[in-house]
Amino acid sequence: MTLYFGVDVGGTSIKTALVTEKGEMVTKSSFATNPHRCPEDVCNELQGVLHQAVEKAACSMSDVVGVGVGLPGFLDLQKGEIIKLPNIGWERVPFIQIAESAFHLPVVMENDAKVAALAESWIGAGQHALALGCVTVGTGVGGGFVVHQRLYRGVNGMAGEVGHLTVDKGGLPCHCGRRGCLETVASATAMVRRAKELQASGQLSDEIAIDEAKTIFDLAEKGDNIAQQIIDEAADWLGFGLSIIAGTVNPDTILIGGGISKAGDVFLRPVTEAFRRYALHLVADACTVRAAKLTNDAGVIGASRLVSQRESLRR
Amino acid sequence: MTLYFGVDVGGTSIKTALVTEKGEMVTKSSFATNPHRCPEDVCNELQGVLHQAVEKAACSMSDVVGVGVGLPGFLDLQKGEIIKLPNIGWERVPFIQIAESAFHLPVVMENDAKVAALAESWIGAGQHALALGCVTVGTGVGGGFVVHQRLYRGVNGMAGEVGHLTVDKGGLPCHCGRRGCLETVASATAMVRRAKELQASGQLSDEIAIDEAKTIFDLAEKGDNIAQQIIDEAADWLGFGLSIIAGTVNPDTILIGGGISKAGDVFLRPVTEAFRRYALHLVADACTVRAAKLTNDAGVIGASRLVSQRESLRR
Repeated sequence: MTLYFGVDVGGTSIKTALVTEKGEMVTKSSFATNPHRCPEDVCNELQGVLHQAVEKAACSMSDVVGVGVGLPGFLDLQKGEIIKLPNIGWERVPFIQIAESAFHLPVVMENDAKVAALAESWIGAGQHALALGCVTVGTGVGGGFVVHQRLYRGVNGMAGEVGHLTVDKGGLPCHCGRRGCLETVASATAMVRRAKELQASGQLSDEIAIDEAKTIFDLAEKGDNIAQQIIDEAADWLGFGLSIIAGTVNPDTILIGGGISKAGDVFLRPVTEAFRRYALHLVADACTVRAAKLTNDAGVIGASRLVSQRESLRR
Repeated sequence: MTLYFGVDVGGTSIKTALVTEKGEMVTKSSFATNPHRCPEDVCNELQGVLHQAVEKAACSMSDVVGVGVGLPGFLDLQKGEIIKLPNIGWERVPFIQIAESAFHLPVVMENDAKVAALAESWIGAGQHALALGCVTVGTGVGGGFVVHQRLYRGVNGMAGEVGHLTVDKGGLPCHCGRRGCLETVASATAMVRRAKELQASGQLSDEIAIDEAKTIFDLAEKGDNIAQQIIDEAADWLGFGLSIIAGTVNPDTILIGGGISKAGDVFLRPVTEAFRRYALHLVADACTVRAAKLTNDAGVIGASRLVSQRESLRR
């Protein structure tokens, strides 16, 4: 039996799963992310979780061939280092070395949005895509490209880092230090910020506190035009971003994942319309935009796929 | 001896060369493009040119293993058809069939900007690039990506069609039927149009007729601030476009080719500055922007490279 241990490190929780060669989860579990803990501590806890999972699944540690970890931020894959995880605060961490010491197993890591893209191409909504673009829209905007079932990373792993494409010249400041990134206009955070601005200026009722994009979708569903306008603006920017991605990479499939995709067609329809308006016809006609499928499990499954592809290279 | 016949069909001339396996041109020639001639006629003339070239080079027709053709427009590579060459007027032409009947040799075709990218990666300024983006700026803006020495085409050959990336939402109309394409703000044509607007409004002297971008560069060199401003605006948009390309594909090298690259550092410097301003640091730091090398010969050499790569697959 061959198993992979998939780990998905998020801003609020760390998810894990033991995954088979077919992408099936044998066991899964999660625990809260504590940003004050150091990477050594977290890896030691994860090693304990792995042993419990193996016991629970009634298999053996020798079945587990490696550990894959999805991480929310910028990584130096050549050095095996975390450059920066903005939401967790880890910076310049020799992660692969720390994790391999804890697990006594080969460890591979990748950016979380790329890992999600890989999962969708493996057993999700992008299985039959020749060239797949995945865009994850939540607190931020992330992305990944999978060509012929392999992640396309670019020369230093930054390919698909679409949340930080400048789309709005001289636009709003972004936490990356620049202005007008796609993330500043098309993320859930951007929608909430815009809603708060419109509440402050009196254009949107401030009876309800708006702390998540879901509230805006709820208001729009009840017929609030301003809430609808916020959604339409974000959808327009996201469609614009997709047109750039598609015009560059020319994929047959683009998947929208992340928290905001839960809104379903209410968001996906205007995004797709904007995409088709901004993209060259020959590009748009070749490309389907649809919702990602794996949602919460994409991280652990994609991280496992990383290991399986690495192991197949070793054999 | 193995030779390739490279053909570069442009709006004003059709260039040809017999090229060796090392990318050296044995003979070259060109004749004027006549938009009123049909593809059959042109292919028959090219077949005559090939025979003359073989004679001139004192080699044999059996040395020529295939013909590669670069074409300025949209192609359907699966069907072997020209979809549209806007500047020549050919539309829905079964080009491969016509050309193979004329040459009695295998024929491959590709978009001219992609062919130029392939040439640069073979023997030009992109020889050592792992991931290369080439942007050709002239009458229009074209582009191509070469990853590990192979063209990345996307699912229907539209990857790298960067001239028609929408960069300016609601911007100027483009001949493709949409608005705000990179081509409408960053091409030589865009600069000339802007200069004429500024002449009409009296902001730029109309003593000199401006029919080509070179005149604008000449004026700027003489200290004309308005001419300099036109250059800076186009350079800013092009740098913005490069930041999008680099943020998506994450190349180590971007080459600027085409007519406008003759302006040299006067144009390349502000383009590079804008690129670094709009791109994420990790993306910009991994990528060098420089001038393409092969200029006029890129088409025939890249077209030959197409044949050589196709032939190596057949062996």
